[in-house]
Formats: sequence, structure tokens, C-alpha cells
Amino acid sequence: MSDQSFASRPTLEAVAARAGVSRATASRVVNGSEGVRAALAERVRRAVDELGYVPNQAARTLVTRRNDAIAVVVAEPETRFFADPFFAQQVRGISKELTAHDNQLVLLLTEGAADYQRVGRYLAGGHVDGALLFSLHDDDSLPMLARRAGVPTVIGGRPGWSDADTLYVDCDNRGGARDAVRHLLGLGRRRIAHIAGPLDQTASVDRLDGFRDVLPDNDPRLTAEGDFTPDGGAKAMAALLERCPDVDAVFAASDVMASGALRMLRTSGRRVPEDVAVIGFDDIVSVSEWTDPPLTTIRQDIEEMGRMMARLLLRTVAAPAANGTETPAPAPIVTPTQLVRRASA
Amino acid sequence: MSDQSFASRPTLEAVAARAGVSRATASRVVNGSEGVRAALAERVRRAVDELGYVPNQAARTLVTRRNDAIAVVVAEPETRFFADPFFAQQVRGISKELTAHDNQLVLLLTEGAADYQRVGRYLAGGHVDGALLFSLHDDDSLPMLARRAGVPTVIGGRPGWSDADTLYVDCDNRGGARDAVRHLLGLGRRRIAHIAGPLDQTASVDRLDGFRDVLPDNDPRLTAEGDFTPDGGAKAMAALLERCPDVDAVFAASDVMASGALRMLRTSGRRVPEDVAVIGFDDIVSVSEWTDPPLTTIRQDIEEMGRMMARLLLRTVAAPAANGTETPAPAPIVTPTQLVRRASA
Repeated sequence: MSDQSFASRPTLEAVAARAGVSRATASRVVNGSEGVRAALAERVRRAVDELGYVPNQAARTLVTRRNDAIAVVVAEPETRFFADPFFAQQVRGISKELTAHDNQLVLLLTEGAADYQRVGRYLAGGHVDGALLFSLHDDDSLPMLARRAGVPTVIGGRPGWSDADTLYVDCDNRGGARDAVRHLLGLGRRRIAHIAGPLDQTASVDRLDGFRDVLPDNDPRLTAEGDFTPDGGAKAMAALLERCPDVDAVFAASDVMASGALRMLRTSGRRVPEDVAVIGFDDIVSVSEWTDPPLTTIRQDIEEMGRMMARLLLRTVAAPAANGTETPAPAPIVTPTQLVRRASA
Repeated sequence: MSDQSFASRPTLEAVAARAGVSRATASRVVNGSEGVRAALAERVRRAVDELGYVPNQAARTLVTRRNDAIAVVVAEPETRFFADPFFAQQVRGISKELTAHDNQLVLLLTEGAADYQRVGRYLAGGHVDGALLFSLHDDDSLPMLARRAGVPTVIGGRPGWSDADTLYVDCDNRGGARDAVRHLLGLGRRRIAHIAGPLDQTASVDRLDGFRDVLPDNDPRLTAEGDFTPDGGAKAMAALLERCPDVDAVFAASDVMASGALRMLRTSGRRVPEDVAVIGFDDIVSVSEWTDPPLTTIRQDIEEMGRMMARLLLRTVAAPAANGTETPAPAPIVTPTQLVRRASA
């Protein structure tokens, strides 16, 4: 940082001089300490406003250890982050909740896993009070880097390891998947396929398990793995149609993959839902309401889950202050899902 | 931050003990200072790796004043940030360039202008080495907050004030607009309308000026103001059709608005380009290639402009080190635009 760029920045000394108080008094007011007479404190605050003084947070952080800032790290390259509306919806909830608590949302973008060491350094750098991690894969180093960095963490989605200390927010993926398959059975469908998400993510595994709970003896050729993208859904659908042309229903593990499956079914001349019923997962409105036909799906309240993650993390960050009170310890949260019927199944 | 969360974090003392050196020696190696024997330095680095030690950046920043992190602030609520593909494309270029220089992209999201004070505090907090600001409006306080915070800044788009010191990257909005209108004239169109962007942004004003350069005596009813959204484009188109049913061409100041205009023209029974030729601005491929018909537009290289912004800022951040050399001072950059012909005009 150039010295020149600091030239226009007022110092604490300037604030003290303008308010006619000692530097120590000005410092106490700026750092929110008690024990300064109201009239003096008011003069300092006026000088702060007039000069546009901003405290040097790097120094302040060493004292207070609080930044009023929370990092969000999505374990996907930024290209996928921006392409998948799921993330924007979850970030929306986080942003609203952090703003309500005057905390800054700090989104750390990467080009891929090769950048995680750098993310780890930033997390360790005293720049944020905690981190929200999303879309973890089995071999992700992000949780370990966050732990080493010493920042409290809440994970979006059940983590792939068992550890009583790990805080996360997830929906009932397995129960939701069971509801999806039961709905297709209730429509009289008997050749029900599943387009799974990438199986290095717990959400995908849990949804596949729910599918198998209801259909334990299903033809294994009726399951294909996608990658949570429209193209992945289309390719999986093409493979399913090739292997089992008599398929009469599909449960896709995400709305985005379901949209690709709908496209492929149309290309192959199948009518939805007459020939093949399709049900998704997520209820991402910008997808599910705009597909042709509109998509029946299993809803999880993505935005609210974002808010829950932020609340859980802020509680954890604030926890030391609550010591000695009878507040229950923060714990993972699993939210219910809900069938939303539109036209596709 | 809870003490517990720091428990697992190795200290510099632990590194020194493991390497069998003094704390001062370990500190010099960790902070990249010279004057430590190679063999000792290697032992310290090995201890760092083995223990997973991460330096306390807040303390380190006070010494080095470098975070290897750059903030990106978009002067739009996060809802609009995620809804407009322009931003994702510009962030893509920035992300690639910062990653190439091992700098962390720190995206500071807000719910709106009410949150800018908080953004200013974060910028002032010693958490980033510089800031890239986008999508400024006339009355935006962000540039002043960034200046007060003392962080070097590069702006995306020509700022609304004149100030020789302000660094920015923009395209030739006015020249591009002239090319758009000349193209429509070349097709024989004579009732040419303009859907402007919000006129509190210089890109909108410059494109409107380019339109007027070529058509100084145009019917004023043939200009309508949009807001850079599809709905805004559709509403402006509806107003133009109402006022001037004989309109035979439209230059929309963004592809996104042009997509809304195409929708409205279809609804009103107009054929594109037979009845009304349409040309956009930006060449956001995910829009221009997928509209019906595909959109003729004025291309600006948005991703490359993102890279340029990042490069310009990194040069500015590094500038003090280059003092005494003959490097020219960083200066604003204006890139050319290019007509891309597809089917709509």
C-alpha cells in the first residue's frame, strides 16, 4: 500500500486534537470502552464524523479480535458458483442475516482447489470472525484449513465425516428423496429412474439412499450419476433412455439436472408427464417454475437455510461472552423438505 | 473468536521449538526476511509444514502492510449482482488475473447503499491491499469511502467526476453506440429508437450521447430509459411501441435489456428483424447467442476488462517498490468495441 494513499486518511491524533481530548481518551471512545464522560465522548464522536476518521482495524483486531465480518467459501470454481442458481439463493439468505447483524459478507472466490491454501491464509489472517463453507466434496481440504486457521466454521450440508463438534445446516435429503419416489409410485409409475448428483457429496449420497429405501430391489441400470449441471442431467437421461427405453419416471437429485433431463426427453420424443414423469429436488424457483412443463420437486428452503447458517455461526462467534449462562450449545440443524406439485409429475 | 477455536492452532513458539531455533529466527523466516542461514531456514520451513503453522496475519499486516488480497465491490444489491450475467463475466476476468498473481479475490456483498459504511470500515480495516469498484451511480459514496479508507482503487467504467488521479477501465461506449446506430442506418432503417440504461451511470449517458452524435435531430419520443434488466427493456419497448408504432429499429444499451425488448416485440406481433431490427450492447454470450433471434450487438471484452482492472490495481499496489525506475505511471484504459452481427439486425 503506498504511503501516498494513506496521506488523506485522518489519524486518531487528529481526532483527539479536534475534540480537545487526549489520544488515550479518543482511543477509548473509538474502541467502545466505558469510563469516558458523555460530553467528552460526544465531542470525540463529532470529531470522528467531521474528519471521516476510520479506525485502523488491523491494530484494533489485535485487541478486540473481532472484525464483524464472515467469510463464505464455496468449494467450487467461480465459473460453477455463478452458473448454479442454488448458490445465489443460499448467499441471499446469508447476506440478509449478516446485514441484519451489521456483519460484512466476505465471499472468497477461487478458480479451484489449487487455491485453497491461499484461502486458508486469508482465513488465518484475522480478517474474518468465522467462515461458512459450502458444497464440500469428500477430499476437500477446506474444513481442515479453516480449523487450522482457528476460525469457527459452519458447513452447508452434512459433512462427510462424523465429528460431534462440526456444526452444519442441511435439509432432510434422505426423507425428501423418499417422498419423491413415493409420489412417483402413487402416480402408478413402475420403471422409476434416478439421476444422482456427484457421489463425492453427501447430499447426493443421502438422496440416493432415500431412493433405495423405497425401491431396494430397483433395476440398477435405472440409476445414473450426474454432476448437478443441466448438461450432466441431459447426459444421464440419455444414458437411462439408451439402457432402459421403458423408463416411465425420473427422480433427479436437483432441479438443474431435471431441467437437462426434460430437454433430453423432449429431444427423444417423450411427453412429460404422459410418457415419463419427472421430479426434481431443491425448488429453485428460477428453474422449477420456468421449465416446460413446470417442475414438480422436493422443496428445501435454501434461503432460510442460508440465514440459519449465518445465525448459527454468529452465535458460535459470540459464544465466549455467553459463558456461564444456561444457553444451550450450538448444534447442527436439519430442516424438513416438502413436495411441491407442478405439472411434470 | 472463542479461545477453544484457537486451541488447535500451532504457535510460532512451537515452530521455533520443533526447528530448534530461537523465536526471533523462526519469525524472520516466516516473515520472509533475509539473513537466516539456508539450513536453519529450511528447518523452520519444515517445522511450519509439519505443524501446519499459519502466521497471524493481523500482526503481520501491521508490519508488511500487505494482505495479497483485493476487494471487489459492486454498487448494486446482491440480488441484482447475481441476476445480471455482466458481473459474473467481469468477476471471471478479475478472478483469473488475481489467481495468476496469488492474490485472493474478496467479494464484499451488500443489500444496498445503506451498507456502504460497513464496506468502508472493512476496506479501512487492513484486510485488503486495494479495491475494484463497479457499477457506480452518480451519488455513490463508495469511491469516497474507499479513498478515506486509504486503499488504492480502480473503477470499472468511467467515473462521473473528472479527476486526473482516478484510475478506471472502460470501453469506448460512445464510439460503440455510434457504430450501432450507423449499422441500423446502413440497413435502411429510418425510425430508430434507443433504450437507454439508467442515466445516473456514465455508461448509459455515453451510449445515449453516441446515439445522438449520429442522429442529432431524432424524434425525442424515440428514446426511453430502462434499468439494465430484461423487464426494464420490455417496459421501455412497450412505451416506444405505444408512442411510435412506426418504429423500425431499436438500439438497446445492453443485451439484457435487448432480450426484454425482443420479448415485447414478439408479444406485439412484430417480426425481428423484418419489422423491427434490434441491436444490443455488451455481447454477453449467454444472452446474445440464446435470444430468438440471436442478437446483433456491440461487443466489449468484459472478461478482459476485468483482467485489466486487476492488473492496473496490482501495479498501483506495488507502485512504491518501483519508485526510482522509469516505469510510466498507471493510467486509465479505454478499450475498443466491435460490431458482432447475428440475426436480429
